Amino acid sequence: MADTQSRTAADTSGPGAPGISRRRLIGTAGATGVALGAVGAGAGYAVASATAPEQQTALTTLGADRVMFHGKHQPGITTPMQARGHVVAFDLAPGAGRKEAAALLRRWSATAERLMAGEPAGADDTDVARDAGPSSLTVTFGFGHSFFARTGLEKQRPGALDPLPDFFSDHLDKARSNGDLWVQIGANDSLVAFHALRAIQKDAGGAAKVRWQMNGFNRSPGATAHPMTARNLMGQVDGTNNPKPSDADFDKRIFVPASGSPDWMANGSYAVVRRIRMLLDDWEQLGAKAQEAVIGRRKSTGAPLSGGSETTEPDLEKTGPGGDLVVPINAHARISRPDQNGGAAMLRRPFSFHDGIAADGTVDAGLLFICWQADPLRGFVPVQRKLDRGDALSEFIRHESSGLFAVPGGAQKGGYVGQELLEG
Amino acid sequence: MADTQSRTAADTSGPGAPGISRRRLIGTAGATGVALGAVGAGAGYAVASATAPEQQTALTTLGADRVMFHGKHQPGITTPMQARGHVVAFDLAPGAGRKEAAALLRRWSATAERLMAGEPAGADDTDVARDAGPSSLTVTFGFGHSFFARTGLEKQRPGALDPLPDFFSDHLDKARSNGDLWVQIGANDSLVAFHALRAIQKDAGGAAKVRWQMNGFNRSPGATAHPMTARNLMGQVDGTNNPKPSDADFDKRIFVPASGSPDWMANGSYAVVRRIRMLLDDWEQLGAKAQEAVIGRRKSTGAPLSGGSETTEPDLEKTGPGGDLVVPINAHARISRPDQNGGAAMLRRPFSFHDGIAADGTVDAGLLFICWQADPLRGFVPVQRKLDRGDALSEFIRHESSGLFAVPGGAQKGGYVGQELLEG
Repeated sequence: MADTQSRTAADTSGPGAPGISRRRLIGTAGATGVALGAVGAGAGYAVASATAPEQQTALTTLGADRVMFHGKHQPGITTPMQARGHVVAFDLAPGAGRKEAAALLRRWSATAERLMAGEPAGADDTDVARDAGPSSLTVTFGFGHSFFARTGLEKQRPGALDPLPDFFSDHLDKARSNGDLWVQIGANDSLVAFHALRAIQKDAGGAAKVRWQMNGFNRSPGATAHPMTARNLMGQVDGTNNPKPSDADFDKRIFVPASGSPDWMANGSYAVVRRIRMLLDDWEQLGAKAQEAVIGRRKSTGAPLSGGSETTEPDLEKTGPGGDLVVPINAHARISRPDQNGGAAMLRRPFSFHDGIAADGTVDAGLLFICWQADPLRGFVPVQRKLDRGDALSEFIRHESSGLFAVPGGAQKGGYVGQELLEG
Repeated sequence: MADTQSRTAADTSGPGAPGISRRRLIGTAGATGVALGAVGAGAGYAVASATAPEQQTALTTLGADRVMFHGKHQPGITTPMQARGHVVAFDLAPGAGRKEAAALLRRWSATAERLMAGEPAGADDTDVARDAGPSSLTVTFGFGHSFFARTGLEKQRPGALDPLPDFFSDHLDKARSNGDLWVQIGANDSLVAFHALRAIQKDAGGAAKVRWQMNGFNRSPGATAHPMTARNLMGQVDGTNNPKPSDADFDKRIFVPASGSPDWMANGSYAVVRRIRMLLDDWEQLGAKAQEAVIGRRKSTGAPLSGGSETTEPDLEKTGPGGDLVVPINAHARISRPDQNGGAAMLRRPFSFHDGIAADGTVDAGLLFICWQADPLRGFVPVQRKLDRGDALSEFIRHESSGLFAVPGGAQKGGYVGQELLEG
């Protein structure tokens, strides 16, 4: 279920060990059976051997951690959240069709495999990630609704890609929404992530043009002793009720079954991507007590206002001394609870974003919301419908863009992502 | 010289140790004599004690590392480069003068001290950094040329703040240049840095308004085994010739002497801040060989084209078989070399930036150049004058904004940054 992730032991060679090899540092990841040697000995970055020994320290697990590209599912879905992320949508260039798309997905898959192994993208690599380890880099590919008509593959378009319904609270910028193709990049190092983004854009060549692109971030590994408790830019604990890979129904909720429909989406998932602006100037003026009433949880611990700990189920019937509901009727935690939504569930795996100051002078920051589900009509849509009607949080957020993408299962060795669709 | 930086041992308590306390995790930093207890026991973040033990892991040094606020110099100058940075300029509000500025710098200093110790900003803290360690947070304050007339302090304005000369290659956006006040924030965790930025903005209250704000990043600690060898988004090794705190003349070049002029700048430094856009689409099309001729160094190792290692002095007279100079006459490494600039030296401590796609469809990325020197007329100015005339790199970069700020020495306990200026 979770991505195969190999953790190489931190190299503990001290200053006396000259010429620590990047290849050596990441070359011990072979326990998973993916031999780096397959890339070809000449293809790796040369070691910056000229660096003085006293300038060398060990690559920690932050840099050495490597996620496997090949697998049942694509990486970047159950991979632990990364410190830096990019999402980018492309539209096929005029004249490009199924053949060009197939060649592009083959190029992209080969690049993703190399970069996720810590290798250069190719002979013309930009060197931006040189000296760095894979840093848990993941590259994930998806197809948007408009892709299928442009490639003559309408019959292969999943019903799950039908446009999302309009929501009352939507303020969507079409130029920053949807797209033929979607790529999600995540890594625990900003230069590794940027390097991958440029390589993916370069691979697009004349076949596809960038439609929109966004940057995000999460906690750095090691910054907190509570890594499961992500916080967003409102200061809230976020992700408490996320399905966990250990849940019995996790696969069923998040991934299209191997026998699912259409065939090419076997073991795939659907991603809903929304730029959710947070109106932080308003939010921060509320004060902690009022914020807790909006959310229905304690800011400090994420525990429901009805008591317990972060993982305690809220007691939605509990009343206070005056007879009022302790978890207010419009509290976000009440409205978004899975058992209030017919069991709908999605795996939220967001990044925060902060793009400086907006034209109106307020801070342009919020949540780059990315959620994963086997079926958007049983994941994002019913939850958002409920939130759209009565969520107290609504007045402090604004959905500014939206995308829905079909993310096929993982590629096998020698294959590429989307091959069953494009050659099926 | 270097900031006093305390490194707490990584807490190795395993899953069996319930309720790991953030206070405990950072509370061992007392070796430097700065007692966290001074903040008051009630002021610290409450521990998210409700978190299940299996969700707790140790804060690594990334989170636990703490930089001291008080000292001879302000933090954020010789502090190792951090993974995330914000720079923000403020203009005093209409009607605000010396008194309001003094109160603001007092608030800011108190907030910086608390945040750099891993404490909340105050009772109305946003909680965005809750659960996280200080993560090497630094907050650094400076004054721009325009500050002095607005506060009736013209006589205290250093000559070193006289406007920088115009450079041929400047394409400066005045709205994103200069400002009365400047704050630099850096941390190894993005949420810790964002939290500090919001707290600093909130403190400004009615006394000052944001003029411009920019975000940047560097490598995450541990992503590379060559931490001294920073790379920029062109893929170049950057910072090779930076003065080092161990150099005999480091203090003289970077800091105003204790007996310097004006008095209030004793132990201070001057920061030049430039948003240098990289024309990456053009640059990446050049190919590695041509890029190396532009820079005069090997991309892989940073070694001069005349041979040796990254730290070898370039042999500027060396010629190739055809009689041509091996390090081209207009190579960046030749023109920017200190001994070609009358010994001018500055400490470059930049962040990279990446703000997505610009209006013209190209990538909006480059270097958030920040350099430090005792005197800009002997640091940035002579180097930039030479680069402005003949640097082969010029056609691949564009200076889009510029600021020059006087950054006073560090505050002592009980005092605040700029006190000698504002109460002198």
